[in-house]
Amino acid sequence: MRDLAIGVIGTGKMGADHAETISSVVARASVRAVVDIDHKRAESVASRLPSARSIVSVEELIQSPDIDAIIIATNSDAHTEQVLACVAAGKPVLCEKPLAPTVAECEKILRAEQVVGQRLLQVGFMRRFDPAYVELQQQLASGSIGHPLLAHCAHRNFGVSSRWEAADTIVSAAVHEFDVMPWLFGREVVGVNWSSPIPIASRSLPDPQLIVLELAGGPLVVAEVTMHSYGYEIRCEIVGDKGAIELAGNARTARRTRLQVSEALPEDFRLRFADAYRIELQSWVDAIHRWRSDPSGNEPISGADGWDGYRAAVITEAVIASMNNGQKTAVNYLPIPDLYRSSRTAS
Amino acid sequence: MRDLAIGVIGTGKMGADHAETISSVVARASVRAVVDIDHKRAESVASRLPSARSIVSVEELIQSPDIDAIIIATNSDAHTEQVLACVAAGKPVLCEKPLAPTVAECEKILRAEQVVGQRLLQVGFMRRFDPAYVELQQQLASGSIGHPLLAHCAHRNFGVSSRWEAADTIVSAAVHEFDVMPWLFGREVVGVNWSSPIPIASRSLPDPQLIVLELAGGPLVVAEVTMHSYGYEIRCEIVGDKGAIELAGNARTARRTRLQVSEALPEDFRLRFADAYRIELQSWVDAIHRWRSDPSGNEPISGADGWDGYRAAVITEAVIASMNNGQKTAVNYLPIPDLYRSSRTAS
Amino acid sequence: MRDLAIGVIGTGKMGADHAETISSVVARASVRAVVDIDHKRAESVASRLPSARSIVSVEELIQSPDIDAIIIATNSDAHTEQVLACVAAGKPVLCEKPLAPTVAECEKILRAEQVVGQRLLQVGFMRRFDPAYVELQQQLASGSIGHPLLAHCAHRNFGVSSRWEAADTIVSAAVHEFDVMPWLFGREVVGVNWSSPIPIASRSLPDPQLIVLELAGGPLVVAEVTMHSYGYEIRCEIVGDKGAIELAGNARTARRTRLQVSEALPEDFRLRFADAYRIELQSWVDAIHRWRSDPSGNEPISGADGWDGYRAAVITEAVIASMNNGQKTAVNYLPIPDLYRSSRTAS
Amino acid sequence: MRDLAIGVIGTGKMGADHAETISSVVARASVRAVVDIDHKRAESVASRLPSARSIVSVEELIQSPDIDAIIIATNSDAHTEQVLACVAAGKPVLCEKPLAPTVAECEKILRAEQVVGQRLLQVGFMRRFDPAYVELQQQLASGSIGHPLLAHCAHRNFGVSSRWEAADTIVSAAVHEFDVMPWLFGREVVGVNWSSPIPIASRSLPDPQLIVLELAGGPLVVAEVTMHSYGYEIRCEIVGDKGAIELAGNARTARRTRLQVSEALPEDFRLRFADAYRIELQSWVDAIHRWRSDPSGNEPISGADGWDGYRAAVITEAVIASMNNGQKTAVNYLPIPDLYRSSRTAS
Repeated sequence: MRDLAIGVIGTGKMGADHAETISSVVARASVRAVVDIDHKRAESVASRLPSARSIVSVEELIQSPDIDAIIIATNSDAHTEQVLACVAAGKPVLCEKPLAPTVAECEKILRAEQVVGQRLLQVGFMRRFDPAYVELQQQLASGSIGHPLLAHCAHRNFGVSSRWEAADTIVSAAVHEFDVMPWLFGREVVGVNWSSPIPIASRSLPDPQLIVLELAGGPLVVAEVTMHSYGYEIRCEIVGDKGAIELAGNARTARRTRLQVSEALPEDFRLRFADAYRIELQSWVDAIHRWRSDPSGNEPISGADGWDGYRAAVITEAVIASMNNGQKTAVNYLPIPDLYRSSRTAS
Repeated sequence: MRDLAIGVIGTGKMGADHAETISSVVARASVRAVVDIDHKRAESVASRLPSARSIVSVEELIQSPDIDAIIIATNSDAHTEQVLACVAAGKPVLCEKPLAPTVAECEKILRAEQVVGQRLLQVGFMRRFDPAYVELQQQLASGSIGHPLLAHCAHRNFGVSSRWEAADTIVSAAVHEFDVMPWLFGREVVGVNWSSPIPIASRSLPDPQLIVLELAGGPLVVAEVTMHSYGYEIRCEIVGDKGAIELAGNARTARRTRLQVSEALPEDFRLRFADAYRIELQSWVDAIHRWRSDPSGNEPISGADGWDGYRAAVITEAVIASMNNGQKTAVNYLPIPDLYRSSRTAS
Repeated sequence: MRDLAIGVIGTGKMGADHAETISSVVARASVRAVVDIDHKRAESVASRLPSARSIVSVEELIQSPDIDAIIIATNSDAHTEQVLACVAAGKPVLCEKPLAPTVAECEKILRAEQVVGQRLLQVGFMRRFDPAYVELQQQLASGSIGHPLLAHCAHRNFGVSSRWEAADTIVSAAVHEFDVMPWLFGREVVGVNWSSPIPIASRSLPDPQLIVLELAGGPLVVAEVTMHSYGYEIRCEIVGDKGAIELAGNARTARRTRLQVSEALPEDFRLRFADAYRIELQSWVDAIHRWRSDPSGNEPISGADGWDGYRAAVITEAVIASMNNGQKTAVNYLPIPDLYRSSRTAS
Repeated sequence: MRDLAIGVIGTGKMGADHAETISSVVARASVRAVVDIDHKRAESVASRLPSARSIVSVEELIQSPDIDAIIIATNSDAHTEQVLACVAAGKPVLCEKPLAPTVAECEKILRAEQVVGQRLLQVGFMRRFDPAYVELQQQLASGSIGHPLLAHCAHRNFGVSSRWEAADTIVSAAVHEFDVMPWLFGREVVGVNWSSPIPIASRSLPDPQLIVLELAGGPLVVAEVTMHSYGYEIRCEIVGDKGAIELAGNARTARRTRLQVSEALPEDFRLRFADAYRIELQSWVDAIHRWRSDPSGNEPISGADGWDGYRAAVITEAVIASMNNGQKTAVNYLPIPDLYRSSRTAS
């Protein structure tokens, strides 16, 4: 079995990381081509990979017959067109979150997949592959805390650029909760409510933001999302009617020095989620191999699909609306198409 | 200096505990009299104390010339009349929370203290004496996490009786947050918002409850209050713009047995706050001694005063209103009377 | 019942602390007299206490008819003579550890108590009153980890003076393990073995010291004792054949700031053991009150007795011998006199 | 670049695990052949791998021209002969610990490598690749706790078979400390001292065992090794003159249920060290690829080498001697051959 040949679109931080991860620690896959609007950056990334060339045109990379599957890590404005081209070409594609900047674009992608008649698109919600979140999910599924009723979440970043705006926090950070909470609870988000100790009307960034998600049937999620915090940290506790379960700390060592005991916190998500990204990519590669050897019983995806990306976009728009109008806001979805419903019956 | 002679009104769980604490581990004070509507219960409690008699009439206990100070631990319906009698008699009184069932009654108490011209009433918000909360308060005051912006709180009980109602959770449990949050932040609560994963309309108890408090100037408090939980646990994290600080666990030992490491959680608040109650009572006794020896520069209270009890009642009513009308609700207070303002200028 | 009148001999750090603790938070006791070789220091301490006079002569304090019980917190060289005087006077005495600098002196004290025919002496091993050690002891007694086989202990100090010598570490710090380990295991120490990463022959202080205690029947205790460490910390884990149990951390809050989460460690034992000292003193006072009201069925002590002080001295000498000769050293005791045996039959 | 073709000798638990790990999550390597004295077991393992055949003869596997590198996971009695054959064939070999049952055999292996003139052998001490141990090592190297003086280690297993003997604990479990402690401290073990709360003379297994290692220059290591414990757990704290650092817990979630908070402990080393094994194998494969493409500047190993395996064997024999004779025992090594010295000059 030869290595899966992967093309990477977008060689910024995220794309370069994925290319490096695949090249160093993912089995049965190689990055064969990269492309970026900054062609010099693409060349530089390609030169550090063992077997990758840089290509000038995105379309050429997607159509290239020696490219089996594609990773999209461009600015989200470019996602829709690129995903549509991959789907049209019948090639598996892993698109970084968020799937697209608008719900309308996500719907366009869903329609395109339905036309093709198969799910080719996976969305890069890597928390589903993080061993701690997986353990949380398994514990919930096993009924270890009874019926889950409430979640307390915190997403804290070690600073963002001065150009960062309130909506960016929702689109880029809170969006992870919009995917992982429905996944953990097995319930849809039906209402959202945005607030912040720093009013949106003020000139500065509202930070922290406090987002309450109401799930179908009643469960509530309280998600703090803070961009200027003491370090990068993700916290999550689920409270059920028989107990509660939370993510444990991630420190590998504890240090005692002058009058304190301390554990280090990481600067960014790459340290925290390095293993999740590796497992996500390996799992995606493995799914594609299975699908290529037997397309009848397999699909080339292993995590969040197009519908999950669409759902996150719908919630994102609702939260932004709640922020702008200061109201609790209902969340409404399209009827789920057959293509996406079938895979959800098991759960 | 002779012991302060204390009378205890109400010898249920809380009153009997206070009497026992004073008798065993509080210096410079003795319980000399107890009274209860269940006279047999009063007699039984008195018989276990070294120097206490049981009295049949509350009024007789309050007026008794050999009683220096009074603890009220009756049902809250009885508080107002009893507090007013103590204040009228010029005797220091420690009244268990909540101060009174209605805001109107609290206002009556404030007026009575203003007539007397001194603060004689302390309200039994014991968290202010808990060493962990005190450390939290000191860290905030020292600026160790910058400006506090957000609090995540959880109050979890190990079950309540089947007669417990939604409002009881607010009146008896959440009320602690209504006192301690303004105390920690040094800001008033100006709005509240109630929600629950279990709708109020359902027959069963809404539990957990999720209460968001909006503080003057913006800070937000998210308080989960759960009556049927895995044990008794109080959690609190304050997030500031330079860091965050939280209550650490309270376990004294960690045990490793068959495939797990575990720490015990207490069944009720008495284990968790035993030290807080002891320190509260000692501190109250000490304040009264100082006031008796020099009334000019001292007051016979050391913690939450009548105004704090009133504030908690105002917030309580607002949260109940929010629960009943499903809306975010504003919180409005009387102008603070001079008697209570002066003691707050320092902070 | 009037307060127990206590005299304090020695008003250095430890004695002044005890006097202050009794005066502020111990019920049913008052410090009535203090004495110190530095008379000015005694006067200064007395002046800060509500009802204490300073006395020039130790003998006068002990004999003073208005003094009911005595605390000895002098340099250990002075202990024996002072304890003997208290015992001869028939007065309860709480002597700080170590009981005396030599085993021979301890034996003299044991003989004196046997002549009097009652145990009047308690030795100030406060760990027996520390709530965490008490919980450890209760868990062991309940069989929660099966048969205890091994203990890992660490005693770390935040520095000592430059005059501190190797034997001081054993006499003043490790001595706590020599009392608390036999108490926890219910077994005698029969052999000891001293070592250090810094050889005794070098000019500098051997620090850390590593002391292995062999208990009767086999259990082993490994005790690290470090005088120049990152702060004051006491750790203890007991390993049994069904599990293990250890002291949990003592921090009350956890703080997150720039890229770390940290908990504070105390500078000295007084912060760590404040509660243990308070409980020790209250418990001692209560025992004396019971004994005074009914001497037939009660004894005026509540913790480590003269025999426990003697045992610790025997082990101390053995460990010093092991340090000096570089050998594992056997520990031998007198046959236990009837006076001390009877109280141990229950355990 | 084609995948490295790996042959696995021994398909018991460890060998089958390595084969599975390489096949699923190691990049640039495939298992091509397996062999086992139980040929059916070899066939069964081969059938679950994508591209492996089972071979009947060890010698045939080693000599097979399409096999690039070999993993030895047989009973340690067989290691020497197999390692020697690999070395003679000039093939990189990763041999599970312990390298060989006797020091004499290890010396034979060292001589064989010296004849060949290059280090082809890596010994499977996986802790060196565990991210927590790596962090410990980096912190020590950075001077974060000053000069390391003392280590407290515990190795606890969740039971062993009834045929397990005292020496097995040393050979199979404690041996990890014999490798990792010199690696962490950068110092050789010069003396050892064995003890146990369960005397060796008794019929039952001495368990726990307590092994003290004396390092050159003074540092001491106290290692508890317990075979019948509450679960699988590895603990390590290093105490330096400026602080201390320890391995943090490994739990990914913390669960609160009826009156306790708990974290799960694994049943065996495979869960605890899954990541260490993956990284060890990836790192070994990468080293071999670099060596194959440029043998002049590279060696086909990335962790413990033959000398490290020899060192562990020397310490193992000394600890067994200490156990048998009840004495502290000196540890003596051959002069380190040039082949192994050069790679150690950097540290």
